[in-house]
This record gives sequence, C-alpha cells and structure tokens, in this order.
Amino acid sequence: MSQLQRIAIAPSQLQQGQILLTKEQQHYLARVLRLREGDRFIAMDGKGKSWLAQLAGEQAQVLEPLLVETELPVSITLMVALPKGNGFDEVVRCCTELGVTCIAPVLSDRTLLNPSPQKLERWRRIAAEAAEQSERSFVPIILEPVAFNTGLSLVIGHSSFANSQQYICVARGEFPHLKDCLQHKGQMTNDIGQEKIVIATGPEGGWTTPEIENAIASGFQPVSLGRRILRAVTAPVVALSLITAACEV
Amino acid sequence: MSQLQRIAIAPSQLQQGQILLTKEQQHYLARVLRLREGDRFIAMDGKGKSWLAQLAGEQAQVLEPLLVETELPVSITLMVALPKGNGFDEVVRCCTELGVTCIAPVLSDRTLLNPSPQKLERWRRIAAEAAEQSERSFVPIILEPVAFNTGLSLVIGHSSFANSQQYICVARGEFPHLKDCLQHKGQMTNDIGQEKIVIATGPEGGWTTPEIENAIASGFQPVSLGRRILRAVTAPVVALSLITAACEV
Repeated sequence: MSQLQRIAIAPSQLQQGQILLTKEQQHYLARVLRLREGDRFIAMDGKGKSWLAQLAGEQAQVLEPLLVETELPVSITLMVALPKGNGFDEVVRCCTELGVTCIAPVLSDRTLLNPSPQKLERWRRIAAEAAEQSERSFVPIILEPVAFNTGLSLVIGHSSFANSQQYICVARGEFPHLKDCLQHKGQMTNDIGQEKIVIATGPEGGWTTPEIENAIASGFQPVSLGRRILRAVTAPVVALSLITAACEV
Repeated sequence: MSQLQRIAIAPSQLQQGQILLTKEQQHYLARVLRLREGDRFIAMDGKGKSWLAQLAGEQAQVLEPLLVETELPVSITLMVALPKGNGFDEVVRCCTELGVTCIAPVLSDRTLLNPSPQKLERWRRIAAEAAEQSERSFVPIILEPVAFNTGLSLVIGHSSFANSQQYICVARGEFPHLKDCLQHKGQMTNDIGQEKIVIATGPEGGWTTPEIENAIASGFQPVSLGRRILRAVTAPVVALSLITAACEV
C-alpha cells in the first residue's frame, strides 16, 4: 500500500464515488507518474482523509477509504520569522514532513524579506508535495505573512488557541530547553484530548528584546534549542523534531 | 564577546602567541569582515580550543584563551547515505550547527551519487563555516565517502567506537522511536564519562533489507524517527536534533 503514488485533491473533486481530475492532475498521473488506465493510487483531501483510487480516463474511481496513522495527536502551529532568500521553501518542506499542522510566516523587526503573493502559492504547493511524499493525510495550512505582533494578537485572541502551549525560541539567554518544557507539560495535559502547541522561531540575528517581551506578555514561554547558534532555517526544523518526537504515540 | 567575528585556523598557525594568517584569511578578515588593524576576533583551532585575537598586519596577536561552552559532552558520529543533488551540503551545514563530531558519508545500495574529490573539500569548507556561525569551538571531521558495509566494518573494528551506542534509522517497520532508546541508554551510561553515539540515516528509497540486517549484525539498533516518511536530507537533521537535545547539559 505504502508504495502507491499519492496525489492531493480538493474535497470538492470527490463526487459520488468518483474523483474528477484536473487537467494538471491527469497530466501528472499519466506523464509524470506513468500511471495507466486501471492503475491505482492514493488520493488525499488534505484534511485527514484519503482514499485508494483507480485511474479511469479523466476521473478516478474510489475503491475504498484508507485508515491513516501518520498524523500526530497534537495540533502544531509554527510561527516562523521569514528567513532571507529562498530559505523558507526548505522550512515548509521539512516541517511538513515532520507533521506540522499550520505554518504562520511572520515579519519581525529584523526580517529583510517582503514576500510576493506568488511566494505564498509556491509555499502551499511545496507543502502539498511534501505531505504526499511523507505519506501524510493532511496538508498543512500556510497562512499569509503578517507582522509578528499581529500574529501574536491573533494567537491571543483566537478561541482555537485557548489552552494551547506557547513557546518562543530564543537563541541567547539562560532559558530552559524546549525538550524539558514539553516533557513537563506533557505530563499535565496528556489526557485532555488533542493538545495544541504554538512555537515561534526567529529571524537571522534573532528576535529583538521588545519582540521577546511582547511574546512573553502574550503568554509565550521563552525556550532554548541548545547552546549553539542555529540559523533561521534550521531552528524551526529542530523545534519541530523535538515536538513531534515528544508527541508521537 | 559573542558578537565578535570568528575564523577557523589550523593548530600549526599558532606560534608563540601569534597567529600566522594565510592570504585567504587576511583577505577574509580585511575585505569580507571589514576588520582593521587592532580589531579583535575569535580564532578557533577546530579541536575545542579558541582564542581572543587582535589583527596586526599579516598576523594576529593572541590576547587570551576563551572558555567555550557550546560543545556537547558526547561524541556523535553521523553515517549518512549520500542524498542526490546538492542535498548533502545542507546536511553538513545543519548537523554542524547542531553539534555533530564526525560525518561519515556512505554509499549505499540505492545511492545514485558518486561524489568527486572537490565535493569533499566543499563539505569541509561548509563545516568550517557552519562551526564558526554556530559559535562552536570544534569543526566536525568529514570523512571520505566509503561503501556502507566498509563503514560498518570500520565502526566495528575501531577501538574509538568501543562501547558506543549505535543506531540505524529505518523509515518503515515497527522499530522503537530513537528518543525512547536514547533516554533509556542515557540513564545507564551518564556517569561513565564522554558517551559515543553512532547514528546512520539512509538514502532516498531507504536502506535495503541486507543493509539493515548487516547493520544489526554489526551491533546497530534499528530505530524509527516517527511515522511519517522523511527525505534523506531531513532524517539526519531530525536524528541530530533528538540526540543533541537528549545530551545537552
């Protein structure tokens, strides 16, 4: 089963046991993946459901829904200060593989980049591809970039983040290690049902002091990822590695 | 102190309290870092020692040795099947930031790449740069690529790996999670002095069954990095994140 090719579909493409394939998907299945009439593949709706499907012309016949066990029992939102260059592509790719639920790119005081709308489309495409490759059944949501302080107020104000664990990674300073905070919290909240974790990682040069203070005032706990200085593109991958390992069942 | 620029030097460059700078280092200090006569910087010998130094013409005056606290109390050797393309550059960069001691690139049954000697020089340069950026005092050793089975026999035969913990990451199968194995081992060996850990991560498509069997026969414990399928370039970063977090004091 796991060796079958996977494609992401929109929920609206599934109608009465048939998947109506877009021209692009038809091309991808036939020309890129080299599937032929009657070949089977896995269709994922990006919201936790997937199906075994069989190629039939411009459609695919749904054969059966699939039980997926690759999603984490926690919801993880990554707030990440946009790194310079194309570094964010790699952040989206790696963190999707690791199991992130939502990625919120933010513009911090030291952010140099002002991304174009095309970038957002590109990141969403990368997330969809990485979800397929890593055999996830859920494509992470990539939000539009906002200022860090706006992002903080969204987290504070939004009911879906109520009771979430909130961490901000700080490169310098004597803060406790993320792994120790996660273990501690895990013991307290393990049996409340799905946990929600929000984690923020900074830009090249780090967060400014006002940004850290603002995050702490918003309920974020400052944490360390270790004694070495990580690049802006490495820190989110390390943070996600620790969170997913702590939460994996 | 931490804001000073850092450069890597060879131990032989340090003579009687003076660092004899190469032409390349002189150019880097003066033209790239824009340091002037009398400016201070940090020189690291890549073997755990570093000094505060002051630029003086074609030399630098050593002012004082520095106490460094950025190195881990464990020795971590990463055996990593060479990924395709330039993916290994990123593995070297991220794993150096994380604190790896030695990187051993290996050619597995499914490795497509046959690297040129120039590649090895490039990886060593990346490791030196990443060690500087992450404020490490030790530049990881990058070994010449060898066949995976040769690498295994080197680990078995070499006295410096005696009593080391050895893990091979396997993408599919019901193996215990690396984090659980590390915690368990940590309790047993914490007070023996410096621990040694060897961890192997596979190529695109994973290790072949004979490779996994050979590694197990060589004393490697098969472990999982989670239920999702990680790319060959993501897996070593995730493995190092978990090991360094478990070992950080």
